[in-house]
Amino acid sequence: MLILHEYAASGNCYKIRLAAALSGTPIERRDYDILKGETRTETFLANVNANGRIPVLQDGGRFLPESNAAAFYIAEGTGLIPADPFDRADMLRWMFWEQYNHEPNIATVRFWMGWVGEENLSDLQRAMLPGKRAGGDAALKLMDEHLANRDWFVGNGPSVADICLYAYTHVAEEGGFELAPWQAVRAWIARVEGLKGYIPITA
Amino acid sequence: MLILHEYAASGNCYKIRLAAALSGTPIERRDYDILKGETRTETFLANVNANGRIPVLQDGGRFLPESNAAAFYIAEGTGLIPADPFDRADMLRWMFWEQYNHEPNIATVRFWMGWVGEENLSDLQRAMLPGKRAGGDAALKLMDEHLANRDWFVGNGPSVADICLYAYTHVAEEGGFELAPWQAVRAWIARVEGLKGYIPITA
Repeated sequence: MLILHEYAASGNCYKIRLAAALSGTPIERRDYDILKGETRTETFLANVNANGRIPVLQDGGRFLPESNAAAFYIAEGTGLIPADPFDRADMLRWMFWEQYNHEPNIATVRFWMGWVGEENLSDLQRAMLPGKRAGGDAALKLMDEHLANRDWFVGNGPSVADICLYAYTHVAEEGGFELAPWQAVRAWIARVEGLKGYIPITA
Repeated sequence: MLILHEYAASGNCYKIRLAAALSGTPIERRDYDILKGETRTETFLANVNANGRIPVLQDGGRFLPESNAAAFYIAEGTGLIPADPFDRADMLRWMFWEQYNHEPNIATVRFWMGWVGEENLSDLQRAMLPGKRAGGDAALKLMDEHLANRDWFVGNGPSVADICLYAYTHVAEEGGFELAPWQAVRAWIARVEGLKGYIPITA
Protein backbone atom coordinates (compact mmCIF):
# COMPACT_ATOMS: atom_id res chain seq x y z
CA MET A 1 0.00 0.00 0.00
CA LEU A 2 1.30 3.45 -0.91
CA ILE A 3 1.41 5.96 1.95
CA LEU A 4 1.04 9.70 1.31
CA HIS A 5 2.71 11.95 3.90
CA GLU A 6 0.84 15.19 3.47
CA TYR A 7 -0.87 18.36 4.61
CA ALA A 8 -4.33 18.06 3.14
CA ALA A 9 -4.97 21.69 2.12
CA SER A 10 -1.75 21.81 0.10
CA GLY A 11 -2.37 21.75 -3.61
CA ASN A 12 0.88 19.84 -4.04
CA CYS A 13 -0.49 17.03 -1.83
CA TYR A 14 -3.85 17.15 -3.60
CA LYS A 15 -2.11 16.48 -6.95
CA ILE A 16 -1.12 13.05 -5.66
CA ARG A 17 -4.55 12.27 -4.20
CA LEU A 18 -6.17 13.31 -7.48
CA ALA A 19 -3.74 11.19 -9.54
CA ALA A 20 -4.52 8.26 -7.24
CA ALA A 21 -8.28 8.81 -7.52
CA LEU A 22 -8.26 9.19 -11.32
CA SER A 23 -6.08 6.10 -11.78
CA GLY A 24 -7.93 3.99 -9.18
CA THR A 25 -4.85 3.60 -6.97
CA PRO A 26 -5.54 3.12 -3.24
CA ILE A 27 -3.38 5.23 -0.90
CA GLU A 28 -3.16 5.61 2.85
CA ARG A 29 -2.86 9.19 4.19
CA ARG A 30 -0.74 10.54 7.05
CA ASP A 31 -1.33 14.17 7.96
CA TYR A 32 1.28 16.67 9.23
CA ASP A 33 0.53 20.21 10.40
CA ILE A 34 3.08 22.31 8.52
CA LEU A 35 2.11 25.40 10.53
CA LYS A 36 3.26 23.58 13.70
CA GLY A 37 6.55 22.56 12.07
CA GLU A 38 5.68 18.87 11.97
CA THR A 39 7.72 18.36 8.78
CA ARG A 40 10.83 19.92 10.33
CA THR A 41 11.21 17.50 13.26
CA GLU A 42 14.37 15.38 13.50
CA THR A 43 12.35 12.22 12.90
CA PHE A 44 10.72 13.61 9.75
CA LEU A 45 14.00 14.93 8.35
CA ALA A 46 15.80 11.63 9.04
CA ASN A 47 13.09 9.24 7.87
CA VAL A 48 10.74 10.93 5.45
CA ASN A 49 12.37 13.89 3.68
CA ALA A 50 15.68 15.64 4.42
CA ASN A 51 14.23 18.65 2.57
CA GLY A 52 11.59 19.08 5.33
CA ARG A 53 8.68 19.28 2.93
CA ILE A 54 5.53 17.43 2.12
CA PRO A 55 4.16 15.72 0.09
CA VAL A 56 6.24 12.56 0.20
CA LEU A 57 4.94 9.32 -1.27
CA GLN A 58 6.13 6.18 0.50
CA ASP A 59 6.29 2.83 -1.30
CA GLY A 60 7.46 0.16 1.13
CA GLY A 61 10.77 1.41 2.51
CA ARG A 62 11.34 4.02 -0.22
CA PHE A 63 10.35 7.67 -0.04
CA LEU A 64 9.55 9.91 -2.99
CA PRO A 65 9.37 13.68 -2.39
CA GLU A 66 8.22 16.26 -4.98
CA SER A 67 4.55 16.33 -5.85
CA ASN A 68 4.93 16.10 -9.60
CA ALA A 69 7.32 13.13 -9.39
CA ALA A 70 4.91 11.33 -7.05
CA ALA A 71 1.92 12.03 -9.32
CA PHE A 72 3.97 10.68 -12.25
CA TYR A 73 4.86 7.54 -10.27
CA ILE A 74 1.25 6.82 -9.37
CA ALA A 75 0.12 7.32 -12.96
CA GLU A 76 2.86 5.12 -14.54
CA GLY A 77 1.28 2.46 -16.71
CA THR A 78 -2.12 4.20 -16.89
CA GLY A 79 -3.65 6.29 -19.64
CA LEU A 80 -2.70 9.42 -17.69
CA ILE A 81 0.80 9.17 -19.17
CA PRO A 82 0.90 9.47 -22.97
CA ALA A 83 2.45 6.58 -24.87
CA ASP A 84 4.07 8.80 -27.51
CA PRO A 85 7.61 9.85 -26.44
CA PHE A 86 7.21 13.48 -27.57
CA ASP A 87 3.85 13.77 -25.81
CA ARG A 88 5.34 12.25 -22.66
CA ALA A 89 8.17 14.81 -22.68
CA ASP A 90 5.64 17.55 -23.46
CA MET A 91 3.62 16.47 -20.41
CA LEU A 92 6.78 16.81 -18.30
CA ARG A 93 7.40 20.20 -19.92
CA TRP A 94 4.12 21.51 -18.48
CA MET A 95 4.91 19.94 -15.12
CA PHE A 96 8.34 21.63 -14.98
CA TRP A 97 6.73 24.87 -16.10
CA GLU A 98 4.19 24.48 -13.28
CA GLN A 99 6.97 24.24 -10.67
CA TYR A 100 8.91 27.18 -12.10
CA ASN A 101 6.31 29.65 -13.38
CA HIS A 102 2.99 28.75 -11.76
CA GLU A 103 3.43 27.30 -8.25
CA PRO A 104 5.94 29.92 -6.93
CA ASN A 105 3.46 32.62 -7.90
CA ILE A 106 -0.07 31.27 -7.57
CA ALA A 107 0.46 28.76 -4.75
CA THR A 108 2.78 31.04 -2.77
CA VAL A 109 0.39 34.00 -2.89
CA ARG A 110 -2.52 31.71 -1.91
CA PHE A 111 -0.47 30.55 1.11
CA TRP A 112 0.52 34.10 2.03
CA MET A 113 -3.06 35.38 1.82
CA GLY A 114 -4.88 32.39 3.29
CA TRP A 115 -2.47 30.95 5.84
CA VAL A 116 0.15 33.58 6.76
CA GLY A 117 -2.27 36.51 6.47
CA GLU A 118 -1.55 39.68 4.51
CA GLU A 119 -1.03 41.66 7.73
CA ASN A 120 1.70 39.24 8.83
CA LEU A 121 3.80 39.36 5.64
CA SER A 122 7.40 40.48 6.01
CA ASP A 123 8.58 43.61 4.20
CA LEU A 124 10.37 41.42 1.67
CA GLN A 125 7.26 39.31 1.03
CA ARG A 126 5.24 42.49 0.63
CA ALA A 127 7.80 43.81 -1.86
CA MET A 128 7.68 40.53 -3.79
CA LEU A 129 3.88 40.45 -3.97
CA PRO A 130 3.37 42.59 -7.14
CA GLY A 131 5.89 40.45 -9.08
CA LYS A 132 4.22 37.26 -7.91
CA ARG A 133 0.77 38.61 -8.87
CA ALA A 134 2.07 39.54 -12.33
CA GLY A 135 3.80 36.16 -12.68
CA GLY A 136 0.62 34.32 -11.69
CA ASP A 137 -1.50 36.35 -14.13
CA ALA A 138 1.05 35.65 -16.90
CA ALA A 139 0.88 31.93 -16.11
CA LEU A 140 -2.92 31.94 -16.32
CA LYS A 141 -2.76 33.86 -19.60
CA LEU A 142 -0.31 31.35 -21.11
CA MET A 143 -2.54 28.46 -20.02
CA ASP A 144 -5.60 30.19 -21.47
CA GLU A 145 -3.90 30.73 -24.82
CA HIS A 146 -2.70 27.12 -24.90
CA LEU A 147 -6.17 25.80 -24.10
CA ALA A 148 -7.93 28.09 -26.59
CA ASN A 149 -8.03 25.35 -29.23
CA ARG A 150 -7.49 22.16 -27.26
CA ASP A 151 -9.24 20.32 -24.44
CA TRP A 152 -6.18 19.06 -22.56
CA PHE A 153 -2.60 20.25 -22.12
CA VAL A 154 -1.06 17.39 -24.10
CA GLY A 155 -2.54 15.16 -26.78
CA ASN A 156 -6.21 14.26 -26.86
CA GLY A 157 -6.90 13.26 -23.29
CA PRO A 158 -6.16 14.13 -19.67
CA SER A 159 -2.62 13.49 -18.45
CA VAL A 160 -0.63 14.10 -15.27
CA ALA A 161 0.08 17.60 -16.63
CA ASP A 162 -3.62 18.48 -16.29
CA ILE A 163 -3.71 17.09 -12.74
CA CYS A 164 -0.61 19.04 -11.67
CA LEU A 165 -1.80 22.29 -13.24
CA TYR A 166 -5.38 21.93 -12.03
CA ALA A 167 -4.36 21.65 -8.35
CA TYR A 168 -3.45 25.30 -7.75
CA THR A 169 -5.30 26.82 -10.72
CA HIS A 170 -8.79 25.94 -9.51
CA VAL A 171 -8.12 27.57 -6.11
CA ALA A 172 -6.20 30.56 -7.54
CA GLU A 173 -8.97 32.92 -6.41
CA GLU A 174 -8.07 32.10 -2.78
CA GLY A 175 -4.86 34.05 -3.50
CA GLY A 176 -6.73 36.90 -5.13
CA PHE A 177 -6.14 35.85 -8.75
CA GLU A 178 -9.09 36.26 -11.08
CA LEU A 179 -10.23 33.30 -13.16
CA ALA A 180 -13.15 35.17 -14.77
CA PRO A 181 -11.04 36.56 -17.68
CA TRP A 182 -9.74 33.12 -18.64
CA GLN A 183 -12.60 31.40 -20.40
CA ALA A 184 -10.56 28.50 -21.80
CA VAL A 185 -9.06 27.83 -18.39
CA ARG A 186 -12.51 27.79 -16.79
CA ALA A 187 -13.82 25.36 -19.42
CA TRP A 188 -10.82 23.10 -18.83
CA ILE A 189 -11.40 23.23 -15.04
CA ALA A 190 -14.95 22.02 -15.67
CA ARG A 191 -13.60 19.20 -17.89
CA VAL A 192 -11.20 18.05 -15.15
CA GLU A 193 -14.05 18.13 -12.62
CA GLY A 194 -16.13 15.97 -14.94
CA LEU A 195 -13.56 13.16 -15.11
CA LYS A 196 -14.59 9.74 -13.78
CA GLY A 197 -13.11 9.32 -10.30
CA TYR A 198 -12.53 13.06 -9.71
CA ILE A 199 -12.30 14.11 -6.05
CA PRO A 200 -12.27 17.71 -4.76
CA ILE A 201 -9.33 19.16 -2.78
CA THR A 202 -11.46 18.95 0.39
CA ALA A 203 -12.04 15.19 0.05
CA MET B 1 17.73 16.26 -36.90
CA LEU B 2 16.91 17.84 -33.54
CA ILE B 3 17.39 21.62 -33.34
CA LEU B 4 18.27 23.33 -30.06
CA HIS B 5 17.16 26.96 -29.79
CA GLU B 6 19.48 28.32 -27.13
CA TYR B 7 21.73 30.87 -25.49
CA ALA B 8 25.00 29.00 -25.07
CA ALA B 9 26.11 30.32 -21.66
CA SER B 10 22.79 29.31 -20.07
CA GLY B 11 23.13 26.27 -17.84
CA ASN B 12 19.59 25.28 -18.82
CA CYS B 13 20.67 25.09 -22.49
CA TYR B 14 23.86 23.26 -21.56
CA LYS B 15 21.82 20.49 -19.87
CA ILE B 16 20.41 19.58 -23.28
CA ARG B 17 23.78 19.73 -25.06
CA LEU B 18 25.29 17.54 -22.32
CA ALA B 19 22.43 15.02 -22.52
CA ALA B 20 22.93 14.92 -26.30
CA ALA B 21 26.70 14.48 -25.97
CA LEU B 22 26.46 11.74 -23.32
CA SER B 23 23.82 9.85 -25.27
CA GLY B 24 25.49 10.32 -28.68
CA THR B 25 22.54 12.28 -30.12
CA PRO B 26 23.43 14.78 -32.86
CA ILE B 27 21.80 18.21 -32.51
CA GLU B 28 21.90 21.41 -34.51
CA ARG B 29 22.26 24.65 -32.54
CA ARG B 30 20.58 28.05 -33.10
CA ASP B 31 21.77 30.86 -30.88
CA TYR B 32 19.68 33.77 -29.51
CA ASP B 33 21.03 36.72 -27.55
CA ILE B 34 18.71 36.90 -24.53
CA LEU B 35 20.28 40.20 -23.46
CA LYS B 36 19.11 41.74 -26.75
CA GLY B 37 15.59 40.32 -26.28
CA GLU B 38 15.90 37.91 -29.19
CA THR B 39 13.55 35.42 -27.45
CA ARG B 40 10.84 38.05 -26.97
CA THR B 41 10.30 38.93 -30.63
CA GLU B 42 6.90 38.31 -32.19
CA THR B 43 8.37 35.61 -34.44
CA PHE B 44 9.95 33.76 -31.53
CA LEU B 45 6.80 33.97 -29.38
CA ALA B 46 4.59 32.79 -32.25
CA ASN B 47 6.83 30.02 -33.60
CA VAL B 48 9.22 28.77 -30.94
CA ASN B 49 7.92 29.44 -27.42
CA ALA B 50 4.98 31.57 -26.26
CA ASN B 51 6.72 31.75 -22.87
CA GLY B 52 9.59 33.76 -24.46
CA ARG B 53 12.31 31.56 -23.02
CA ILE B 54 15.10 29.33 -24.19
CA PRO B 55 16.02 26.50 -24.37
CA VAL B 56 13.51 24.99 -26.75
CA LEU B 57 14.18 21.67 -28.46
CA GLN B 58 12.67 21.32 -31.92
CA ASP B 59 11.87 17.92 -33.40
CA GLY B 60 10.47 18.39 -36.89
CA GLY B 61 7.51 20.72 -36.53
CA ARG B 62 7.14 20.25 -32.77
CA PHE B 63 8.70 22.45 -30.10
CA LEU B 64 9.60 21.38 -26.57
CA PRO B 65 10.42 24.11 -24.03
CA GLU B 66 11.75 23.48 -20.50
CA SER B 67 15.33 22.28 -20.17
CA ASN B 68 14.62 19.27 -17.99
CA ALA B 69 11.84 18.00 -20.26
CA ALA B 70 14.10 18.37 -23.32
CA ALA B 71 17.00 16.56 -21.59
CA PHE B 72 14.56 13.78 -20.66
CA TYR B 73 13.34 13.54 -24.27
CA ILE B 74 16.87 13.28 -25.67
CA ALA B 75 17.78 10.60 -23.14
CA GLU B 76 14.65 8.44 -23.67
CA GLY B 77 15.65 4.88 -24.52
CA THR B 78 19.24 5.29 -23.30
CA GLY B 79 20.87 4.19 -20.05
CA LEU B 80 20.55 7.75 -18.76
CA ILE B 81 16.94 6.98 -17.78
CA PRO B 82 16.61 4.21 -15.17
CA ALA B 83 14.50 1.20 -16.14
CA ASP B 84 13.04 0.72 -12.65
CA PRO B 85 9.79 2.75 -12.24
CA PHE B 86 10.65 3.98 -8.74
CA ASP B 87 14.14 5.03 -9.83
CA ARG B 88 12.66 6.79 -12.87
CA ALA B 89 10.27 8.76 -10.66
CA ASP B 90 13.12 9.43 -8.21
CA MET B 91 15.17 10.85 -11.08
CA LEU B 92 12.26 13.18 -11.91
CA ARG B 93 12.04 14.07 -8.20
CA TRP B 94 15.58 15.47 -8.32
CA MET B 95 14.82 17.28 -11.57
CA PHE B 96 11.70 18.95 -10.09
CA TRP B 97 13.70 19.78 -6.98
CA GLU B 98 16.34 21.35 -9.21
CA GLN B 99 13.78 23.66 -10.82
CA TYR B 100 12.21 24.65 -7.50
CA ASN B 101 15.05 24.74 -4.96
CA HIS B 102 18.29 24.96 -6.92
CA GLU B 103 17.90 26.88 -10.18
CA PRO B 104 15.92 29.87 -8.80
CA ASN B 105 18.70 30.41 -6.27
CA ILE B 106 22.01 29.29 -7.78
CA ALA B 107 21.32 30.06 -11.45
CA THR B 108 19.52 33.32 -10.75
CA VAL B 109 22.31 34.68 -8.54
CA ARG B 110 24.90 33.61 -11.15
CA PHE B 111 22.93 35.57 -13.77
CA TRP B 112 22.54 38.60 -11.50
CA MET B 113 26.26 38.66 -10.65
CA GLY B 114 27.73 37.73 -14.04
CA TRP B 115 25.29 39.21 -16.54
CA VAL B 116 23.18 41.91 -14.88
CA GLY B 117 26.00 43.09 -12.58
CA GLU B 118 25.62 43.58 -8.84
CA GLU B 119 25.64 47.39 -9.25
CA ASN B 120 22.66 47.19 -11.62
CA LEU B 121 20.38 45.10 -9.41
CA SER B 122 17.03 46.63 -8.50
CA ASP B 123 16.21 47.30 -4.85
CA LEU B 124 13.93 44.27 -4.83
CA GLN B 125 16.63 42.00 -6.32
CA ARG B 126 19.08 43.31 -3.74
CA ALA B 127 16.58 42.56 -0.96
CA MET B 128 16.05 39.03 -2.34
CA LEU B 129 19.78 38.27 -2.56
CA PRO B 130 20.38 37.02 1.04
CA GLY B 131 17.43 34.61 0.76
CA LYS B 132 18.68 33.33 -2.58
CA ARG B 133 22.21 32.86 -1.20
CA ALA B 134 20.82 30.93 1.78
CA GLY B 135 18.57 28.88 -0.52
CA GLY B 136 21.49 28.04 -2.79
CA ASP B 137 23.69 27.03 0.14
CA ALA B 138 20.89 24.85 1.51
CA ALA B 139 20.54 23.19 -1.90
CA LEU B 140 24.28 22.45 -2.05
CA LYS B 141 24.17 21.07 1.50
CA LEU B 142 21.27 18.75 0.66
CA MET B 143 23.12 17.50 -2.43
CA ASP B 144 26.28 16.95 -0.41
CA GLU B 145 24.44 14.91 2.22
CA HIS B 146 22.69 12.86 -0.45
CA LEU B 147 25.98 12.14 -2.26
CA ALA B 148 27.89 11.32 0.94
CA ASN B 149 27.37 7.59 0.45
CA ARG B 150 26.49 7.26 -3.22
CA ASP B 151 28.14 8.09 -6.55
CA TRP B 152 25.07 9.26 -8.48
CA PHE B 153 21.77 10.86 -7.55
CA VAL B 154 19.66 7.83 -8.43
CA GLY B 155 20.57 4.15 -8.63
CA ASN B 156 24.06 2.98 -9.57
CA GLY B 157 24.85 5.07 -12.61
CA PRO B 158 24.51 8.53 -14.10
CA SER B 159 21.02 9.64 -15.10
CA VAL B 160 19.38 12.78 -16.44
CA ALA B 161 19.12 13.97 -12.82
CA ASP B 162 22.92 14.18 -12.63
CA ILE B 163 23.05 16.11 -15.91
CA CYS B 164 20.38 18.59 -14.83
CA LEU B 165 21.93 19.17 -11.40
CA TYR B 166 25.49 19.35 -12.71
CA ALA B 167 24.73 22.20 -15.13
CA TYR B 168 24.42 25.03 -12.59
CA THR B 169 26.24 23.36 -9.69
CA HIS B 170 29.62 23.23 -11.40
CA VAL B 171 29.48 26.97 -12.18
CA ALA B 172 27.95 27.97 -8.82
CA GLU B 173 31.11 29.85 -7.89
CA GLU B 174 30.36 32.31 -10.72
CA GLY B 175 27.44 33.42 -8.51
CA GLY B 176 29.61 33.60 -5.42
CA PHE B 177 28.59 30.24 -3.95
CA GLU B 178 31.41 28.21 -2.38
CA LEU B 179 31.93 24.63 -3.49
CA ALA B 180 34.98 24.05 -1.25
CA PRO B 181 32.91 22.95 1.79
CA TRP B 182 31.03 20.31 -0.20
CA GLN B 183 33.45 17.44 -0.67
CA ALA B 184 30.90 14.91 -1.90
CA VAL B 185 29.55 17.40 -4.43
CA ARG B 186 33.06 18.09 -5.72
CA ALA B 187 33.81 14.37 -6.07
CA TRP B 188 30.53 13.92 -7.97
CA ILE B 189 31.40 16.87 -10.27
CA ALA B 190 34.68 15.08 -11.09
CA ARG B 191 32.75 11.88 -11.83
CA VAL B 192 30.41 13.69 -14.23
CA GLU B 193 33.41 15.27 -15.96
CA GLY B 194 34.97 11.82 -16.38
CA LEU B 195 31.98 10.39 -18.26
CA LYS B 196 32.58 9.18 -21.82
CA GLY B 197 31.33 11.87 -24.21
CA TYR B 198 31.38 14.68 -21.61
CA ILE B 199 31.57 18.21 -23.02
CA PRO B 200 32.16 21.42 -21.04
CA ILE B 201 29.64 24.30 -20.91
CA THR B 202 31.91 26.31 -23.21
CA ALA B 203 31.88 23.67 -25.98
